[in-house]
Amino acid sequence: MKPKGRPESAAGEPVAGNGILSRRIFLETALAAGAATATASAASAQPLAVEPWMKTPGAGFDSYGQPSKFESKVVRLIPPPPNPATQGVGASRTPLERLDGIITPSGLHFERSHSGIPNIDPDRHRVVIHGLVKRPLVFTLEALSRYPMESRIAFIECGGNSQALNAPKAAPLGMAAIHGLLGCQEWTGVKLSTLLDEAGVDPSARWVIAEGGDSCAMSRSIPLAKAMGDTLVCLYQNGERVRPSNGYPVRLLVPGYEGNMNVKWLRRLKLTNAPAMTKDETSKYTVLLKDEKSWQFVFPIEVKSVITRPAPGLSLKGPGFYEISGLAWSGNGRIKQVDVSADGGKSWAPAALHGPVLPAAPVRFRAAWQWNGGPAVLQSRATDDTGMVQPTRAQFADDRGLRGVYHYNAIASWAIDAKGEASNVYA
Amino acid sequence: MKPKGRPESAAGEPVAGNGILSRRIFLETALAAGAATATASAASAQPLAVEPWMKTPGAGFDSYGQPSKFESKVVRLIPPPPNPATQGVGASRTPLERLDGIITPSGLHFERSHSGIPNIDPDRHRVVIHGLVKRPLVFTLEALSRYPMESRIAFIECGGNSQALNAPKAAPLGMAAIHGLLGCQEWTGVKLSTLLDEAGVDPSARWVIAEGGDSCAMSRSIPLAKAMGDTLVCLYQNGERVRPSNGYPVRLLVPGYEGNMNVKWLRRLKLTNAPAMTKDETSKYTVLLKDEKSWQFVFPIEVKSVITRPAPGLSLKGPGFYEISGLAWSGNGRIKQVDVSADGGKSWAPAALHGPVLPAAPVRFRAAWQWNGGPAVLQSRATDDTGMVQPTRAQFADDRGLRGVYHYNAIASWAIDAKGEASNVYA
Repeated sequence: MKPKGRPESAAGEPVAGNGILSRRIFLETALAAGAATATASAASAQPLAVEPWMKTPGAGFDSYGQPSKFESKVVRLIPPPPNPATQGVGASRTPLERLDGIITPSGLHFERSHSGIPNIDPDRHRVVIHGLVKRPLVFTLEALSRYPMESRIAFIECGGNSQALNAPKAAPLGMAAIHGLLGCQEWTGVKLSTLLDEAGVDPSARWVIAEGGDSCAMSRSIPLAKAMGDTLVCLYQNGERVRPSNGYPVRLLVPGYEGNMNVKWLRRLKLTNAPAMTKDETSKYTVLLKDEKSWQFVFPIEVKSVITRPAPGLSLKGPGFYEISGLAWSGNGRIKQVDVSADGGKSWAPAALHGPVLPAAPVRFRAAWQWNGGPAVLQSRATDDTGMVQPTRAQFADDRGLRGVYHYNAIASWAIDAKGEASNVYA
Repeated sequence: MKPKGRPESAAGEPVAGNGILSRRIFLETALAAGAATATASAASAQPLAVEPWMKTPGAGFDSYGQPSKFESKVVRLIPPPPNPATQGVGASRTPLERLDGIITPSGLHFERSHSGIPNIDPDRHRVVIHGLVKRPLVFTLEALSRYPMESRIAFIECGGNSQALNAPKAAPLGMAAIHGLLGCQEWTGVKLSTLLDEAGVDPSARWVIAEGGDSCAMSRSIPLAKAMGDTLVCLYQNGERVRPSNGYPVRLLVPGYEGNMNVKWLRRLKLTNAPAMTKDETSKYTVLLKDEKSWQFVFPIEVKSVITRPAPGLSLKGPGFYEISGLAWSGNGRIKQVDVSADGGKSWAPAALHGPVLPAAPVRFRAAWQWNGGPAVLQSRATDDTGMVQPTRAQFADDRGLRGVYHYNAIASWAIDAKGEASNVYA
């Protein structure tokens, strides 16, 4: 999609205000390199140091590897529990500003639980399908493993992600604290439709009530059409068995739908002719609107993006070339375009999208930026292939108000100050 | 690509000998489910058990998550070191038979090192570019992080993978022991061409000698055209910083080329007009042919596939429906088709490929199989988009002989016995 009303510029030339360079810089690398010269140093006449780790043999092999100890600060953000007795109630958050690409490391995928993370014995665990079906069925893990499987790369985002931006004043929060309830994995499992067909769906069924095996039996109502569509009963994430905090040994993937519908520790699927109005879909996950009405059952995550670098905590080291990098996603389809601005939305230029661009999966976008050392406000604006465009915060507030808590998807802003520090602002 | 000379069959009907069913079973799930009925049990009148983990709140959050303790056997295979003093010389192997999808969990990605895994301090580490360049340059990690980056999903396979199948008799080895030197990650880094352009490549340069920062300074010669093409200087794998055994803090990705050219712990890139003939490309990684000649510098991994399930160690539980699942890859391009056989290659039918199908990335293939309880020999045969077809072992032996050690890519076979046990055979 060509930027509208703007001629193509040569690589290295500004295409939007405050230093946004043409995305063609990514194709014409000599110019990108030219722009970046300040970051490398001329090699000195002295030989490269032979460091201690080159002087003795290194370590042996590990049965299950871990990150370098030098990366020990790259961890999930765990807010203190409001009550020590309910330590597993709440969430831990993905440090998106420390990551790149679209895959989230499984160890850093955000966690959200309503009653802690159960320690489930897979040999004892069962999944039952009952209600409006011809043949109620019980599945062991081994039985599930026998069915045809599918793999897909997909995001899961908590419906409450970015809700900090509903606050009337911009809080001094970082990437993970604001946007860290987002992850993306390669999920593998059995199509739920395969299992429902096996049980025989009664023609009167309209909904599937999915119940988790945690101690609060977290439950959500899923429309039958979605359950018979692309919903997966997942046994694997990023190649290995689903992790405990992501639903071990089996969870739903309801692609593009708000996080807690992707029910973890899946135990029971009951087919019904109406939604169950469970505590988990009435006391929470309803969007309060500005006119005191509300939207219940807002399922798909709407088009959204965030800049992950620069971001709070990652200081810019003086004026010069930087890459603006971030994630864009939509529960309604594929990302079509991402635009970036360095002047708080006065001018925009398209970012480069690195494929594959998949439905209900994040896309990594990248734009070239020449920071002049002055103040800047960085923003990204995603458009999906249904034509939905991420709104400004003002448009979002005008449309829905700011009391909704859930499904906040407005354009987010990082201000860069003269020291190169980024901070959360409204612009 | 339609199977040649074979009419499309209805879902659930055999399309090749010994129980291979139409791949359309994956589209018509009612029939797939019908085929699989034996694997689920009718729900009893008794209520589903309320297990202990539902009776008390679960665990709290972890800063860096790990797999379930019930999966503690899913680990890399570490052969005993031939010499206790050289514990880091050799390899650990990915348990492909326990995984699904195409992404390898970073903790289970195979390890290969020639002098152990160095413990590199990223603040002290440097990457130098010198030799036939206009401006020799030294890069800190922070400097590298400033450049435009790219992400891609790609496999890395050791050139010596599957060499056990060169043995005259089929050894009783499992998946990891034979084929486990294969991994796939989402890699993110700076294009090497960007850095070489920054240094200014002298017109006389033809090769780049890449040297690792391990204690043997593992080094390989890479043709300049590849270095200026899709080669990446990687800082991230599966979203987080490169793991120690995969080259922390920086490694090359030379997409599709044999594993050790993807130099880990990258320290030095010297541009030259000829290959360096390092110990690592002369004493190893040369393919000995049957006529006593040899191929040196065999870079791309040729088209290849393996069935990961069923596989040795995963017993079939009686006759019935099973999914045959595996991985196919080619260093020369994209996978075009994978055929499977249950009768040792007498008849073949195409497997379903689940996208995205990316260049130099593995594809997960799946086929439906009705095991009748009798003997079977399972095989897969991949074709890439250059038209290369995976050879039979006999064709491979006839072409190159079986003394080559490296780049073994012939069709592999698992025999299934009457007990449902799989074993490595030649067929």
